[in-house]
Amino acid sequence: MAQGTFFSILEERSRALGSLLCVGLDPHPGLLPAPTAQSARDLCLRAVRGAATWAVAFKPNIAFFEAFGAPGWEALRAVIEAIHEQADRLGRGPIPIILDAKRGDIASTAEAYARAAFEVLGADAITLNPYLGYDSITPFLEYRQKGLFILCKTSNPGSADVQDVLLRDGRPLYEHVAQRVNEWDRYGNLGLVVGATFPQALARLRQIAPQRWFLVPGLGAQGGELEATLRAGLRPDGLGLLLNLSRAILAAPDPARAAAEWHDKITQTLREMEQQ
Amino acid sequence: MAQGTFFSILEERSRALGSLLCVGLDPHPGLLPAPTAQSARDLCLRAVRGAATWAVAFKPNIAFFEAFGAPGWEALRAVIEAIHEQADRLGRGPIPIILDAKRGDIASTAEAYARAAFEVLGADAITLNPYLGYDSITPFLEYRQKGLFILCKTSNPGSADVQDVLLRDGRPLYEHVAQRVNEWDRYGNLGLVVGATFPQALARLRQIAPQRWFLVPGLGAQGGELEATLRAGLRPDGLGLLLNLSRAILAAPDPARAAAEWHDKITQTLREMEQQ
Repeated sequence: MAQGTFFSILEERSRALGSLLCVGLDPHPGLLPAPTAQSARDLCLRAVRGAATWAVAFKPNIAFFEAFGAPGWEALRAVIEAIHEQADRLGRGPIPIILDAKRGDIASTAEAYARAAFEVLGADAITLNPYLGYDSITPFLEYRQKGLFILCKTSNPGSADVQDVLLRDGRPLYEHVAQRVNEWDRYGNLGLVVGATFPQALARLRQIAPQRWFLVPGLGAQGGELEATLRAGLRPDGLGLLLNLSRAILAAPDPARAAAEWHDKITQTLREMEQQ
Repeated sequence: MAQGTFFSILEERSRALGSLLCVGLDPHPGLLPAPTAQSARDLCLRAVRGAATWAVAFKPNIAFFEAFGAPGWEALRAVIEAIHEQADRLGRGPIPIILDAKRGDIASTAEAYARAAFEVLGADAITLNPYLGYDSITPFLEYRQKGLFILCKTSNPGSADVQDVLLRDGRPLYEHVAQRVNEWDRYGNLGLVVGATFPQALARLRQIAPQRWFLVPGLGAQGGELEATLRAGLRPDGLGLLLNLSRAILAAPDPARAAAEWHDKITQTLREMEQQ
């Protein structure tokens, strides 16, 4: 993306589309006609072409490309290139690309990961793991135009094992992480990852971080509910949540129709909530 | 590696060499004559050829290869292949390869990362981040011949931000993680990552996990001290620590000599400690 910061562009696009839909590109091997990088690429290209009109952002998960080695990386680059092409074709500004990579390493290594994500692949944002602390985030932070979504309370059942551990003052660890992120956010380019499967945690985190963007996986296949998620996490201005749907769109017989349906479902639920 | 589990092979090789030396392959851009995948590969190949006699294990860090995109992945494969070739040439059995990747994602995604590490790249072990909990580890766990080193207390200053947070019972989070790893270790293929920069944490973790292998970064450039590390973390049988040296060998004018010197330093310190 040429102009503006990740979050300013995200916010503008979300407002323009009246939507919060993020389309996850997770080419699981079970979805592929053949176990090849080309097959993963083609599945994603189909979703990108179909859903670009409706997607506030795209979120490719690098794991499913890495699983094919070097050709997988080329496939991922082709998918990112295709998102840029769709944005140019549609003429409504850039479509933000969030690389779901969940990286976290000591500073000198994190620099290399940041280079891979932002310079080699050209992503606009990335997901990061907070376990190694502030100095593992700083090399990414310095890319001030980019967005960093820090894992806080993830959507999987096992998230309880570490993230829910209670601290001395009775708070769960994920609240501590959200507070640290508030301290770390010198340049205003940090978001959180919060699963839709835990609306109570989402509500609590919205109190701790009233203005922050949350990337929200766990709707659809994982069982999170749309209205409960919106009620728990939406900012007063109706923004601040990026609702990720992956398989529901990627594996649909017609990704364009599936994306349009999710778009409608989100905008309609938002309207109904406004009227209440 | 064809036969045996990762930890049985590691233990056998460590005993045969009388050493605990792990050679980290972290081709930082500052160490390269040119910013290319080929240059990163050549630097690592030089260290592999020089240090294979002395290395109990090699630990390539995938970040520095990813930073070159697809060609970086090919370079990493070439480095891993070269380690196999050196093992064949030396005829003293396989040399274990630990992929330093610090991955962590929900189960269905973790499967893809496991495939990338173990099947595409052919690593024998991997480093993993525990923040997403047990179900993020299980897909790796099922590769029972492979070794998984779970990040526990890392060597960087920022490790305090999350890992040192005190829980309700007064323990730091990293102790909780070590105890969880004890519960998760159904097949005996889990180790921990514990930095040499925190010998007190190392000693405490040895109490919690008396038999577990610890992968120990932080010696050399990061300031950890050899004897303090050995005193804090060695098992009664003189094994259980894998002491990682990266830049001290990779960037040395003569990696073979640097590796031999570290080998001697380790074996001599072990001997002196035995005699006390």
